[in-house]
Amino acid sequence: MRVYNFSAGPSMLPEQVLKIAASEMMDYHGSGQSVMEMSHRSSVYEEIIETCEALLRKAMNIPPEYKVLFLQGGAWSQFAMVPLNLMKKGKADFVVSGMWADKAYKETKKFGQAVCVASSADKNYSYIPTVTPEMLSPDADYLHICWNNTIFGTKWNTIPQANVPVVADMSSSILSEPIDVSKFGLIYAGAQKNMGCAGLTVVIVREDIITEVPANCPSMFNYRNHIENGSMFNTPPTYAIYICKLVLDWLLELGGVDAIYTQNLKKAGLLYSFLESSSLFTDVVNKADRSLMNVTFLVRGEGLDKQFDKEATAAGFINLKGHRLVGGMRASIYNAMPVQGVEALVDLMKDFERRHG
Amino acid sequence: MRVYNFSAGPSMLPEQVLKIAASEMMDYHGSGQSVMEMSHRSSVYEEIIETCEALLRKAMNIPPEYKVLFLQGGAWSQFAMVPLNLMKKGKADFVVSGMWADKAYKETKKFGQAVCVASSADKNYSYIPTVTPEMLSPDADYLHICWNNTIFGTKWNTIPQANVPVVADMSSSILSEPIDVSKFGLIYAGAQKNMGCAGLTVVIVREDIITEVPANCPSMFNYRNHIENGSMFNTPPTYAIYICKLVLDWLLELGGVDAIYTQNLKKAGLLYSFLESSSLFTDVVNKADRSLMNVTFLVRGEGLDKQFDKEATAAGFINLKGHRLVGGMRASIYNAMPVQGVEALVDLMKDFERRHG
Repeated sequence: MRVYNFSAGPSMLPEQVLKIAASEMMDYHGSGQSVMEMSHRSSVYEEIIETCEALLRKAMNIPPEYKVLFLQGGAWSQFAMVPLNLMKKGKADFVVSGMWADKAYKETKKFGQAVCVASSADKNYSYIPTVTPEMLSPDADYLHICWNNTIFGTKWNTIPQANVPVVADMSSSILSEPIDVSKFGLIYAGAQKNMGCAGLTVVIVREDIITEVPANCPSMFNYRNHIENGSMFNTPPTYAIYICKLVLDWLLELGGVDAIYTQNLKKAGLLYSFLESSSLFTDVVNKADRSLMNVTFLVRGEGLDKQFDKEATAAGFINLKGHRLVGGMRASIYNAMPVQGVEALVDLMKDFERRHG
Repeated sequence: MRVYNFSAGPSMLPEQVLKIAASEMMDYHGSGQSVMEMSHRSSVYEEIIETCEALLRKAMNIPPEYKVLFLQGGAWSQFAMVPLNLMKKGKADFVVSGMWADKAYKETKKFGQAVCVASSADKNYSYIPTVTPEMLSPDADYLHICWNNTIFGTKWNTIPQANVPVVADMSSSILSEPIDVSKFGLIYAGAQKNMGCAGLTVVIVREDIITEVPANCPSMFNYRNHIENGSMFNTPPTYAIYICKLVLDWLLELGGVDAIYTQNLKKAGLLYSFLESSSLFTDVVNKADRSLMNVTFLVRGEGLDKQFDKEATAAGFINLKGHRLVGGMRASIYNAMPVQGVEALVDLMKDFERRHG
């Protein structure tokens, strides 16, 4: 029996994706090979990576002046690549809205001046700070934000106004809601939440902002190398890109980002409405800043967090334990989590409340 | 019909590995999840990565003072990570025995002094240069070699004598022959040739040589971060590690590195003996330095290279075209290529010779 996996990532994949991957494992489309075995330079593989890019461009409506890169190394690599490539004047602004935003901010200090223009650390990152143009450094190279805060369960709803490129970590929200790519300079996302499996990092960048890098920038951290070689500067994570393509096939068949957004609103709505009505379970973040993907909540009463997690796990609802920085529970309900999974979770919570409330 | 894939990498995987991966795709060992969907922090996944490490330690007889890391980014990332972590006095020696050795050498110049102590560029890298202790810099931090030269088809047979750690790129030879790990300071290898699929890079390092990094070293390029977090400094390429585990299961069931080495000697022997006896096909590298994994050869006669490649492809022997720096053909016969595949290739070459010789 398949479980409902509420992991913050890696997490659930659509069953259709897994079924196709399994069925094509020994022989992809009559090529006599698994996708894992293909030379990345072969025409059969080139079609996969090109289709993946085309599908992503379609799903996100990515303007032609933006390049799409399929890289490795996760957000942590982007924390260094972004300043190494975009810092020209030596300064970048950061909104520190959670632990990952803070990691990006601190990593940047290795390469220049990182300015924290706003933070929600004062209330354990339970809200998205307000950012107005006058708060930004007049001489910054870019403004970095983390669009969805996986650990704390908050997300941005408006793109901050800035005269410089806005760089966004969208690891845990990409493809979950409509985003106007043209309002960003660079978007990056690890694939292991909404796009596929771990080991693939997608970068969407307006090409004109990528120019020179410092002389001591590792070649792998130079976006230009990846742009000029169509994500084949070195061997890309070929199978992870194939899985991403299958996820995009599934998403577009479903109706694309607009359709999944409607479904995501429904899923998150089911949980947040229940949390508002519950006397036992309680939400923890500012209502206006609620994440669509990561719903954080507490269980009132000594030891009931652990008890709930235990019962949920036994019933096939796994990875609901919250991050230690928040405590309590976290239900990560990425695109691949079906509505029924959330409905069943709410039923479980109602039942638990009846017995322990 | 499955093809015989002679790609330089990514390349063939054992059918057993693909079959198991397909059969476990929807539900790994009753966990209700694909390995791709598992939280990397879950106990079910921890067992996979820990088993993978234990199997690799067993297969390669890795001493306990060495750490095993499962990273991303391929050899290109190692070209920067090695100097960033190991250069203390600011100098490293390089033997430039091929294009990848040269790339490692040139990348290192970004971080300090890289000294080319020997090169075989004079004869298009068709041999492994002799290296004696007096050729090495007395004040180097380490000596870097590329154990097997994928493009040119040569390999080292003796570890050069040095008073400093020897760092070896073993991307295209790891697990193909017995190696005394204790004679190296650091070994790295992309997984996409002998260990699994693209997107995983294995590093085996004597822990005491990893100390401080420069203040501006990206966190992802600091080996210490990966060591201290058991390869979970960030989300590792979880599925690629699982495939590596399946490959190691297969290898150890087969009898381990000693058994595959015997098979590899037989496979390479079949090809090299034929090349020696053929009037149409001819080998290109120094006999003593022949690679066991990548057999490079030319086809005499105008246009016969292309003709052979065309006929071979049609017959289900794919990716035999040589790298443009050598021309001709290259048969990459990694561990997963069965003896029958090489026998069938030799038969094809004999037939081609009869018709075109």
